[in-house]
Amino acid sequence: MSDNAIDRASALRALFRPSSVAVVGASADPTKTGGRPVNYLIKHGFEGSIYPINPKVEEISGLKCYASVEDLPEAPDAAIVLLGVERAHVAVRQLAERGTKLAIVLASGFSEAGEAGRARQEELLRAAGTMRILGPNTIGAMDLARNIVLSASGALEVSDLPVGGISVASQSGGILGALLSRGAARGIGFSKLATTGNEVDVDLADLIDYYADDDDTQVIVGYIEGIRSVEKFRHAAEKARRAGKPVVVFKVGRSDSGARAAVSHTGAMAGEDRVYDMLFRQCGIIRADRFADLLDVPAMLVTGRKMKGRRVAVLTSTGGAGSLVADSCGIGGLDVPLLDDATANGLAAILQASEPMTANPVDVTLAGVKPDVMTASTEMLLNSQSVDGVVVIVGSSALAQPEIAVGAIKNGAARSTKPLIAYVSPYAPHIVKELNRQGIPAYTDPETCAVALRAALPVSTVESALRITDVPGAPDWLTPGTLNEARSRALFDHYGLSGTDQRIVQTASEATAAATELGGRVVLKVLSSQIAHKSDVGGVKVGLDDTTIGPAVEQMTRHLADQKLPKREGFLVQKMLSGGVEVILGLRRDPQLGPLILLGAGGVFAELADDSAIRLLPIAETDARDMVSDLRLSRILNGYRGGKEYDVEALVAAIMALARMGESLGERLLEAEINPLFVMPKGEGVAAADALVVLG
Amino acid sequence: MSDNAIDRASALRALFRPSSVAVVGASADPTKTGGRPVNYLIKHGFEGSIYPINPKVEEISGLKCYASVEDLPEAPDAAIVLLGVERAHVAVRQLAERGTKLAIVLASGFSEAGEAGRARQEELLRAAGTMRILGPNTIGAMDLARNIVLSASGALEVSDLPVGGISVASQSGGILGALLSRGAARGIGFSKLATTGNEVDVDLADLIDYYADDDDTQVIVGYIEGIRSVEKFRHAAEKARRAGKPVVVFKVGRSDSGARAAVSHTGAMAGEDRVYDMLFRQCGIIRADRFADLLDVPAMLVTGRKMKGRRVAVLTSTGGAGSLVADSCGIGGLDVPLLDDATANGLAAILQASEPMTANPVDVTLAGVKPDVMTASTEMLLNSQSVDGVVVIVGSSALAQPEIAVGAIKNGAARSTKPLIAYVSPYAPHIVKELNRQGIPAYTDPETCAVALRAALPVSTVESALRITDVPGAPDWLTPGTLNEARSRALFDHYGLSGTDQRIVQTASEATAAATELGGRVVLKVLSSQIAHKSDVGGVKVGLDDTTIGPAVEQMTRHLADQKLPKREGFLVQKMLSGGVEVILGLRRDPQLGPLILLGAGGVFAELADDSAIRLLPIAETDARDMVSDLRLSRILNGYRGGKEYDVEALVAAIMALARMGESLGERLLEAEINPLFVMPKGEGVAAADALVVLG
Repeated sequence: MSDNAIDRASALRALFRPSSVAVVGASADPTKTGGRPVNYLIKHGFEGSIYPINPKVEEISGLKCYASVEDLPEAPDAAIVLLGVERAHVAVRQLAERGTKLAIVLASGFSEAGEAGRARQEELLRAAGTMRILGPNTIGAMDLARNIVLSASGALEVSDLPVGGISVASQSGGILGALLSRGAARGIGFSKLATTGNEVDVDLADLIDYYADDDDTQVIVGYIEGIRSVEKFRHAAEKARRAGKPVVVFKVGRSDSGARAAVSHTGAMAGEDRVYDMLFRQCGIIRADRFADLLDVPAMLVTGRKMKGRRVAVLTSTGGAGSLVADSCGIGGLDVPLLDDATANGLAAILQASEPMTANPVDVTLAGVKPDVMTASTEMLLNSQSVDGVVVIVGSSALAQPEIAVGAIKNGAARSTKPLIAYVSPYAPHIVKELNRQGIPAYTDPETCAVALRAALPVSTVESALRITDVPGAPDWLTPGTLNEARSRALFDHYGLSGTDQRIVQTASEATAAATELGGRVVLKVLSSQIAHKSDVGGVKVGLDDTTIGPAVEQMTRHLADQKLPKREGFLVQKMLSGGVEVILGLRRDPQLGPLILLGAGGVFAELADDSAIRLLPIAETDARDMVSDLRLSRILNGYRGGKEYDVEALVAAIMALARMGESLGERLLEAEINPLFVMPKGEGVAAADALVVLG
Repeated sequence: MSDNAIDRASALRALFRPSSVAVVGASADPTKTGGRPVNYLIKHGFEGSIYPINPKVEEISGLKCYASVEDLPEAPDAAIVLLGVERAHVAVRQLAERGTKLAIVLASGFSEAGEAGRARQEELLRAAGTMRILGPNTIGAMDLARNIVLSASGALEVSDLPVGGISVASQSGGILGALLSRGAARGIGFSKLATTGNEVDVDLADLIDYYADDDDTQVIVGYIEGIRSVEKFRHAAEKARRAGKPVVVFKVGRSDSGARAAVSHTGAMAGEDRVYDMLFRQCGIIRADRFADLLDVPAMLVTGRKMKGRRVAVLTSTGGAGSLVADSCGIGGLDVPLLDDATANGLAAILQASEPMTANPVDVTLAGVKPDVMTASTEMLLNSQSVDGVVVIVGSSALAQPEIAVGAIKNGAARSTKPLIAYVSPYAPHIVKELNRQGIPAYTDPETCAVALRAALPVSTVESALRITDVPGAPDWLTPGTLNEARSRALFDHYGLSGTDQRIVQTASEATAAATELGGRVVLKVLSSQIAHKSDVGGVKVGLDDTTIGPAVEQMTRHLADQKLPKREGFLVQKMLSGGVEVILGLRRDPQLGPLILLGAGGVFAELADDSAIRLLPIAETDARDMVSDLRLSRILNGYRGGKEYDVEALVAAIMALARMGESLGERLLEAEINPLFVMPKGEGVAAADALVVLG
């Protein structure tokens, strides 16, 4: 068995298309959990070989039962391990030795269960060698199109499993079961579903990667508690993006309470939620805001219909629901415009109205009960040049003859490729199900109509680089720990981000000479890698000139000596800038998701308005530009109310310089910050006024 | 018939408890809309007299049919008018003349249908005289507890109508039907429901007022497209508040698209959504954010159980859903804390765990399938001193024996008065319905669990006055139109809000004398009621003193003359202030909801951060104080990071002065603004630096 990446990826095929399956610890009692997998395989018509393994039983459901893995007539392609936490690793080792490609380990009690559990998980991983593992703490996997169910979960005992183009990767088995049962009830069809659980090996990124290549998958859904490798995740997402397959995820752990719960559930590490938000945005992934969106948005996307713009027409036979849906669309960032003349006249002809029907929502009142009128009106709206998508409202009048209402809507949609969705106003689950089955996404929350249509807009193009190419080498003078301000500034200089003019001095007379040379007003700062907050100890004095700086040096020297502070390395004399806008530019490491750049407004405004933008590294220049635009402060930078414009280009270059520094130094760079960075008037660049770098 | 308020209110009783009902335009064909009302009354067992009226028919459903209102043997208590828009007013006039208390007019085509429709609505109102009208454009009313259905709507043909403590007032009939059908499917019970439609007479406020007195109503639900009388609405809400009955409303028209749709639907006028938000807050009304909340929140409130704090315990047998609900609670502003020792030990004993169970969510795994364990765990959590409310999660294990799961939860809740709700993870509408029927609010969106529990927190006490008592009289020198700055300032002075020291001058030498008298730096402004933007025309000059103000007056005079501006009334010389924080304080009139006070941060910060607070008049001093707290700027006013504190007390007094001015001048005051108002350091007061008043 070779251990290269291609083999490891192809082993995943054994999860959804195994040629043979061993069930280790199978029970002959079909009512027990251990009895389910063999029966599921038989019931759904699995065509490969099934090998139950249980030393105490001769036969299970008419199949020969083997005493051990060694006794099997061939190496099984895949295996389900039903043994408990104490013995699972034994079976895993035997399966790996036989040459099994992938084993599903259902048992819990591993990394989610404290120190002892983590040790057991390590042992499991060692036992697997190069064999792949799904789990532990998983409910398994299934391929609904091929009726392959590798699971022991009762949650999957749904009959009439709906087949469709949505494939799901979930870190939680219970959530997968909920999605499947809710989707089935609503006529939303799935292709493949798998739970990764503790992700000792196969993780969400592996599944996304696999689904990106899978012909049966049109939309990928992820339920995420934590991401283990950001780089792998970004590459998988990029592969799906190139394949034209939207990825929709729900990330639990946005609050402290939720994050703590998720950690205890599958041992996932929590990152800061805002950083996840940005990760998804940089990957072009749609993040579901509400849990229900995780089905509702894919149900829209799987139709493949796209909104070319934000203009929505609402067709209704009940005024109240029409207003409600139109309002929700408006709140959700869509437009519900008046209709153009051609459409208004066309509708008037269909509905036998005396005047052009420009109003939107289009209220067909009782005429809407007639199927041909409904079909023609729907078609007219979809073909309108002032409409990008249509919501048809199903009112209580449809309850009597649901199949006619559904048929009328479906026929109206047939001759257009624009999005068409339905809002079902009364309680009518059978209509919702039938609409979804017929390819018309149907919703019962007005707000969700807007969410679904908005998801069908083109995803804003994200150009985040997966790697920065022009990364210069690191300088040779770096040492671990906190660099003093002069060295921090020098390091930024090295990567192309320069600061205010400055001189390092030791004495009052050197300071006076430096001030004369720099001219104008200057700032005096103590230089030390060991004084974290210079201002707090009286180590900063502003507004000096060459006549006042000498006495200032002497006074500062005495003042610092009085406080018995750590050794200083001299003083900095810096030219004082005015006329610039203050920003904060920094790099820090998210404990889970790695290095990220932070840009924020400076000064009191910043602190009060919480005005900042983040991006995970690596980034492209467009990201840097977007970061600036993300700030409310950008209104000032771009010339607020006809005021002065500031050097945004230089700010973008500064962000990229910090990004290069982050790429170049990698994990050595723990923290870097320029505060403040002055953004000067257009054409005059930016200048770092203070800098801090911490190296590992 | 007398026209006093008590009679008008008591007439509403005829809507829900009529002693006799006339049905004008009744049809003998039960499949037609006109055939429904008589049949609904009979079917639901109405005990009073029913009088069908139709000149062409002898008998309807076994009841004698009358040719006209005049032919009736008595004045009917209430009447349903089924006639169309052209003839409804004739029946209304006849009913009024007979002494009917209230008529329900179903026809549409009135104020929602343009100019002609508005005229017809006026005619209808005249025809009614002192008789009350529900509608037109309504689907009627019903009392489920008494099986009284005064409607022709097919949407109300739901059998098995669920009875409960929620009463609904809706401006839309279709929405009422949707709420009823959705509520019925989920086991949520109603008391009374009515649609006000175009509200020619009976409006939402009347219904809220009636429900506030109604013994069968515990929670009041309102679906609002627009409010016609703010004062009446506020009084009705206050009555409900005093009766201890929560009011939950959904207001459509938050977006421009939705507002336009609502106007065309029932002719309601749109107000600015933010002002509605504040109106509801000032009334102590809960505003539903999502449409579904309009059922979900009342379902919680009708239990009468209150959260005393924000601490939630989550009990689950499925880890994924536990995390999801805990996370949603955290995002929703609730806490999901670790459990105290007593609770943790108690749970360990129940669940036979070896260690105290401090974790929250409490994961009972498979033990949760046993009803007695579930009951005991639920009870333990509800009685915990570290828990204010509990969410029990219903997983797929409950699907097999729903009645046992429901029973276990219900038994657990029995010995506590704390809120207990259920989250149903798989698709299981029968379990949701049974839980709600048993008094356990059950939800299928994790986010809604948080919304429901948060709604059970005490409503933040709102002390908005319904009238300001100490309102001084208006001065006698007021004239309509825009007042110049000096007069505007004088008017503010009259109500107790004073400004910077200033002098009105006509000449350069008077200006010089004024500057000398004021001392320090001064501002020179042209004084004119006809120049709206003084700065734009060079009519403001700052930073002057007694040596520079003379030439400045001469230069400004020439400059203004060059522009051929309207006549000026002189110049203002004002003392320049420094060291204050700038705010904007103003009063404006919302076209629908009336006068409101606006307080905002001043300067660039304000414009970028959109930092402002509003309140509808009248207000109490606590409102003024809350307005200040609403601003992010309050962090600066209260001494940001140990910095200077500013005179918040004086700012509160200034807000109240403006409120008194608004009350005193009433509709004469179109607009008033002080921009900027300087809030000086603590103890130094506030000072208006510029003022504008427009009178009608």
